[in-house]
Amino acid sequence: MEPSSPPFTRIAIMGLGLMGASLGMALRSGGFDGTIAGYDAQVEVARRARERGAMDEPCVTPAAAVAGADLVVLATPISVIPAVMAGMAPHLAPDAIVTDLASVKQQIIQWAERGIPSPERFVGGHPMAGSESGGVESARADLYAGCAWCLTPVAHTSPMALRRVSQLTSMLGASPMVLDPAAHDEAVALVSHLPRLVAVALALTASRSAIWSRAAPLAAGGFRDTTRVASGDSGMLRDICATNRAALLATVDAYLETLRTLRADIVAGAPTLPETFAEAKYARDDWLTTRDHL
Amino acid sequence: MEPSSPPFTRIAIMGLGLMGASLGMALRSGGFDGTIAGYDAQVEVARRARERGAMDEPCVTPAAAVAGADLVVLATPISVIPAVMAGMAPHLAPDAIVTDLASVKQQIIQWAERGIPSPERFVGGHPMAGSESGGVESARADLYAGCAWCLTPVAHTSPMALRRVSQLTSMLGASPMVLDPAAHDEAVALVSHLPRLVAVALALTASRSAIWSRAAPLAAGGFRDTTRVASGDSGMLRDICATNRAALLATVDAYLETLRTLRADIVAGAPTLPETFAEAKYARDDWLTTRDHL
Repeated sequence: MEPSSPPFTRIAIMGLGLMGASLGMALRSGGFDGTIAGYDAQVEVARRARERGAMDEPCVTPAAAVAGADLVVLATPISVIPAVMAGMAPHLAPDAIVTDLASVKQQIIQWAERGIPSPERFVGGHPMAGSESGGVESARADLYAGCAWCLTPVAHTSPMALRRVSQLTSMLGASPMVLDPAAHDEAVALVSHLPRLVAVALALTASRSAIWSRAAPLAAGGFRDTTRVASGDSGMLRDICATNRAALLATVDAYLETLRTLRADIVAGAPTLPETFAEAKYARDDWLTTRDHL
Repeated sequence: MEPSSPPFTRIAIMGLGLMGASLGMALRSGGFDGTIAGYDAQVEVARRARERGAMDEPCVTPAAAVAGADLVVLATPISVIPAVMAGMAPHLAPDAIVTDLASVKQQIIQWAERGIPSPERFVGGHPMAGSESGGVESARADLYAGCAWCLTPVAHTSPMALRRVSQLTSMLGASPMVLDPAAHDEAVALVSHLPRLVAVALALTASRSAIWSRAAPLAAGGFRDTTRVASGDSGMLRDICATNRAALLATVDAYLETLRTLRADIVAGAPTLPETFAEAKYARDDWLTTRDHL
């Protein structure tokens, strides 16, 4: 059994959109009884997060939110993380642990090395959960229930900090999964970031087509689902492209190659085409059986 | 008001998978009180379809099913439609109307011109509904509720035949939509067949990747939905590729071009990228607001 770690007493959530507000609600419904301080650049968002039970202490500056916190969770858009780190760094308690919820890890860790006074107490985190409907109004206490929660320590990360964050994710019903930051970024490029680009390209191809106005009424469940993640936050996708570029481009190239080969097989009426389609079906079906909480 | 047409008294459903069995169940729950005869190449499937209330008269040959029917609905896989037409043609009542549920229309109409004794009473049909889970066990009475149901008459199609099939689809809760067969095939290539290939290519790219075994546990809702239609019937997708090839290839080319442009913009860090992502989001969101039954 893992040694039990001291519970957190004051958690500061920086950014109260879907991810941050859901975290606060999940902490409360998971039995966390300490203080939850919250900061958001939009005061109205902070007000709604409080109303929804995501936190009880709205703060108008990063400094005020982190003061006295033993855990700080960065849940802002990726692009503002350096500024939030700069605002909170001078006010962090010496033993505070910092984690984040961002979809890329190497870039955040690089920023933390420079921007957090004790980078050994920074534990990169990424819960594999979300929704194309962002914002505090979409937050829900069970967003993280059953999800994989990546934790990406580096060589000098404090084992105690890792353990405490890991135990917190377990308390929220998630499955903590420790992995290397580069391996994380490569994996999410394939299974999370590539699907977004694929969906964006489909929504664009369809809606820019000369026949879209008469084709749109025929689009049904297949189109809806294959494009769903194109309705996600476009700023987040831009940040992902900027901060996980190399891994993402590698998956885009593999995807383009797969689709070009499919195209050639269709042109040729290749006898292997049914097997290829069956391979895709069984690969997905197999994967889905391992993910029964989805 | 449209003139009211004589109701059908005996409907024969050829093929009792998801589409055919759901049609029978929908007819019953929509108040159809005539006979429903059903044929399937697999006797066990016909037995289950009867148990599930999709029809009351299982027939072991196409000939037996169509004998005395005033409406015949072809709901088999595309590739066996010519054989089913050949089997039933000599036994069709002189005034029987024939329709189908297949995802492509020009090829089926071509077959009907040669294979149906009175092609003016053939009305091509395609309900825009389905599921990645095929087969009689997935059939449900509300599969067609609220869907667009394409009807693709040609110059010599009997207006009475078109009207009677159209009224039947309305009775099932669908919205009949009359369009040109070529326009249909082009539109479904864009909004239905292309999404399938896009999903297949994503499932293949991910599952063939060297890092799949460690990436798969991180795949979540985005991957699940973007690949959903890759779990559909692989034989049907092969038939679609064979019978709607030109229209499908045109959409694949447009898609490849869109994705290559996105890739170039990511490489360049193009300042227009956020707008492009927002364009995709708003195009999809707009479309979705028009499709509120989905």
